[in-house]
Amino acid sequence: MTLDAVLAHIDETLPEALERLNDLLRIPSISTDPVYKDDCARAADWLAADLTALGFDAAIRPTPGHPMVVAHGQGPGTGDGRHLLFYGHYDVQPVDPLNLWHRDPFDPVIEDTPNGRVIRARGASDDKGQLMTFIEACGAWKAVHGSLPGKLTIFLEGEEESSSLSLVPFMKEHAAELTADIALICDTSLHEDKYPAITTMLRGLVQEQITIHAANKDLHSGVYGGAAANPIRVLTKILASLHDDQGRVTLPGFYDDVDELPDAIRAQWQALPFDHAKFLGDVGLSVPTGELDRTPLEMLWSRPTCEFNGITGGYTGTGFKTVLPAEASAKVSFRLVSRQNPAKISAAFRAHIRAMLPPDCRAEFANEGNNPASVMEITDPAFEAARTALTEEWGLPAAYVGSGGSIPIAGYFKSVLGMDAMLVGFAKDDDQIHSPNEKYDVESFHKGIRSWARILARLS
Amino acid sequence: MTLDAVLAHIDETLPEALERLNDLLRIPSISTDPVYKDDCARAADWLAADLTALGFDAAIRPTPGHPMVVAHGQGPGTGDGRHLLFYGHYDVQPVDPLNLWHRDPFDPVIEDTPNGRVIRARGASDDKGQLMTFIEACGAWKAVHGSLPGKLTIFLEGEEESSSLSLVPFMKEHAAELTADIALICDTSLHEDKYPAITTMLRGLVQEQITIHAANKDLHSGVYGGAAANPIRVLTKILASLHDDQGRVTLPGFYDDVDELPDAIRAQWQALPFDHAKFLGDVGLSVPTGELDRTPLEMLWSRPTCEFNGITGGYTGTGFKTVLPAEASAKVSFRLVSRQNPAKISAAFRAHIRAMLPPDCRAEFANEGNNPASVMEITDPAFEAARTALTEEWGLPAAYVGSGGSIPIAGYFKSVLGMDAMLVGFAKDDDQIHSPNEKYDVESFHKGIRSWARILARLS
Repeated sequence: MTLDAVLAHIDETLPEALERLNDLLRIPSISTDPVYKDDCARAADWLAADLTALGFDAAIRPTPGHPMVVAHGQGPGTGDGRHLLFYGHYDVQPVDPLNLWHRDPFDPVIEDTPNGRVIRARGASDDKGQLMTFIEACGAWKAVHGSLPGKLTIFLEGEEESSSLSLVPFMKEHAAELTADIALICDTSLHEDKYPAITTMLRGLVQEQITIHAANKDLHSGVYGGAAANPIRVLTKILASLHDDQGRVTLPGFYDDVDELPDAIRAQWQALPFDHAKFLGDVGLSVPTGELDRTPLEMLWSRPTCEFNGITGGYTGTGFKTVLPAEASAKVSFRLVSRQNPAKISAAFRAHIRAMLPPDCRAEFANEGNNPASVMEITDPAFEAARTALTEEWGLPAAYVGSGGSIPIAGYFKSVLGMDAMLVGFAKDDDQIHSPNEKYDVESFHKGIRSWARILARLS
Repeated sequence: MTLDAVLAHIDETLPEALERLNDLLRIPSISTDPVYKDDCARAADWLAADLTALGFDAAIRPTPGHPMVVAHGQGPGTGDGRHLLFYGHYDVQPVDPLNLWHRDPFDPVIEDTPNGRVIRARGASDDKGQLMTFIEACGAWKAVHGSLPGKLTIFLEGEEESSSLSLVPFMKEHAAELTADIALICDTSLHEDKYPAITTMLRGLVQEQITIHAANKDLHSGVYGGAAANPIRVLTKILASLHDDQGRVTLPGFYDDVDELPDAIRAQWQALPFDHAKFLGDVGLSVPTGELDRTPLEMLWSRPTCEFNGITGGYTGTGFKTVLPAEASAKVSFRLVSRQNPAKISAAFRAHIRAMLPPDCRAEFANEGNNPASVMEITDPAFEAARTALTEEWGLPAAYVGSGGSIPIAGYFKSVLGMDAMLVGFAKDDDQIHSPNEKYDVESFHKGIRSWARILARLS
């Protein structure tokens, strides 16, 4: 009964909720461009005011970059009585190239499309629309019951699209204040654009740049070719040695800390609708290229990789130049899973290369980032409770899914604050986040609010 | 007696010969820059006038580019009575970066240096100083004897530094007029800066560009990493397969048309002073990297190679981007020897790559140039005669040497006109050709003129 009243209120007041979202979308809070510094502050102010109106004790908290918004709320618990922390970010990506937008990115509009109504604006999906689903759920609860649903902390960042430089220092400084029983994050997607999903595994990432040096200057291949070391040849030999014929990474110990998928998750993934032919076909491919004995979803979510993201050496312009270059370099990244240690993988990579270096050659390394994988403890009953809530709302079985990419905040909640994070989001693959004409489905917004109301009813 | 009088005249009139060379060096005949078109014509005019003064029937011959100078001369034969054709080029390289020159590149001067007197100017060595050694030898002969030494054709080009686009068409059109018993070319160096040398082997060159295409756009490695084909990985695997552990090229049939060195040449090369430690040490290297069972000189002069001259793919800027690129490409060249057929090597390379292509990947090829190797028929007694003449002049044994690079004109004389070419030159490694502060040793010029006088006495 309690929940039903809240859901009904959400349905009745959707137009007003959309208006509030549009107000926030009108603020061009592009965090990476200093020109929009005041706009970022305005967005933080707007959110603090909105949260204050709902009964939160909300404050703007300065950082060396853009401010954080931290809000604490307390109401009678409605379910398991957990202290929940919700994280989102109010900053958005730049809008270039502006000429590819069909309208002003900061003049939001509700558009009718062949696939339903959408909210069109920069940030509609990433992340203003998603974070407002949670705030609106709290607001609906407050409107119906006069109080917030349990003990809540809301933590909103303004630097997610510009490297989150202030995030970890702020979390460390305010660890006690920010620690809750579990973190909720709304920055992910529906599975296959329609199944509600909780992301429980995120891959980590090691980024290494390697440069091979040989001669002390570029040489002419007519004079030196056949006798002088060629760094491109050395580099390609090294890179080619990093995968075996089965698609496995050859670094010694690479798989030591890789856990096999728990049976429960494996069974779910096997049952999960995933059109891998379409997934690859959309980008002109047809055959998965990872480890031969793994399914495509495993390759993407639960298996580590070694990828080459860039390579350069010698003459790369038009025409030809018979140069033997003095150096060649590559950017190599590893997606990590389970308990793989970034520093250990980085060290194994460098040792492998040093062992393969021929005479006269020297390797220079630069680490460009290390993040471990995040694996949530789904034995916490909160996960099953949320899954049930999502299944009820969407009428389709909610799934535990993985993510091939990294969402560093999830790792920080674990490493800095010792909290697991539950990632629930309602974005779709065609939301054009980071691209022109970003949108968020009105259905995602509406059912997203309802989803959080259901989850809050069970957890808080 | 006859020759001695010519050599004495060369010694006595060296200052006047240097003055003539300086006159030619003052003309900025940079062929690649249209601004200097009239200067190229002036250089051709100057040479035609100089040759006419020596009794040649000299003419400016227009081409779609810069003009050729063709001169015919006839005097009583002095030796074997051969019809000799001499080739040189009057155009020069650009002078940028001008600020690195210590003086005006087109205001030649004779400088005293710790290593002897040098002529300092653009083109002093490449090729005005070298071509004038031959013309001055003819002039000295004429001055002493009143006639030219035998039947001579002089053929001077003005596009050697800008791709020689008119050369082959001109040779084909005037094949009868340009065909002689043997061609002489003065555009090479002394061996180890002091031993007179005749270059009898020049490597050929195949230049291939290959691009591997996979997905129809750049992908995010967080979303696709582990399942989508990566063209950098495919390319490095392919390139790494082109050499075995012994440094040999793995293309099927690659060595089929590679002849072992004739015993006579091998013996000479083994006796040849060559400081390979210095050769590599000068560029910061120490260990030759070619086929393990070959000497460094063999690697450089008589063995074919496969070299990677450029590679690019993905993100190559500062920092990191976790992209899986849609394509990656490389520039691959093969230095050819003996009877290796460029078209056959190119086809073998492409077939090898096609055979290695994984599903979903496509290879795109572009040929950027094909030249066969040139191997002179040193059984022609002209070679031994010239070698004796050079040994007499320099007081050190003249050697048959190879060249790791290509001098396409030598191949054209063979393929278009059916003539062997004898390459004799007096440049030194520190002549800075194509670089600022180019110079030519006065000794190279002086003894170069004397060398040609001796060779003419024996051959013509």
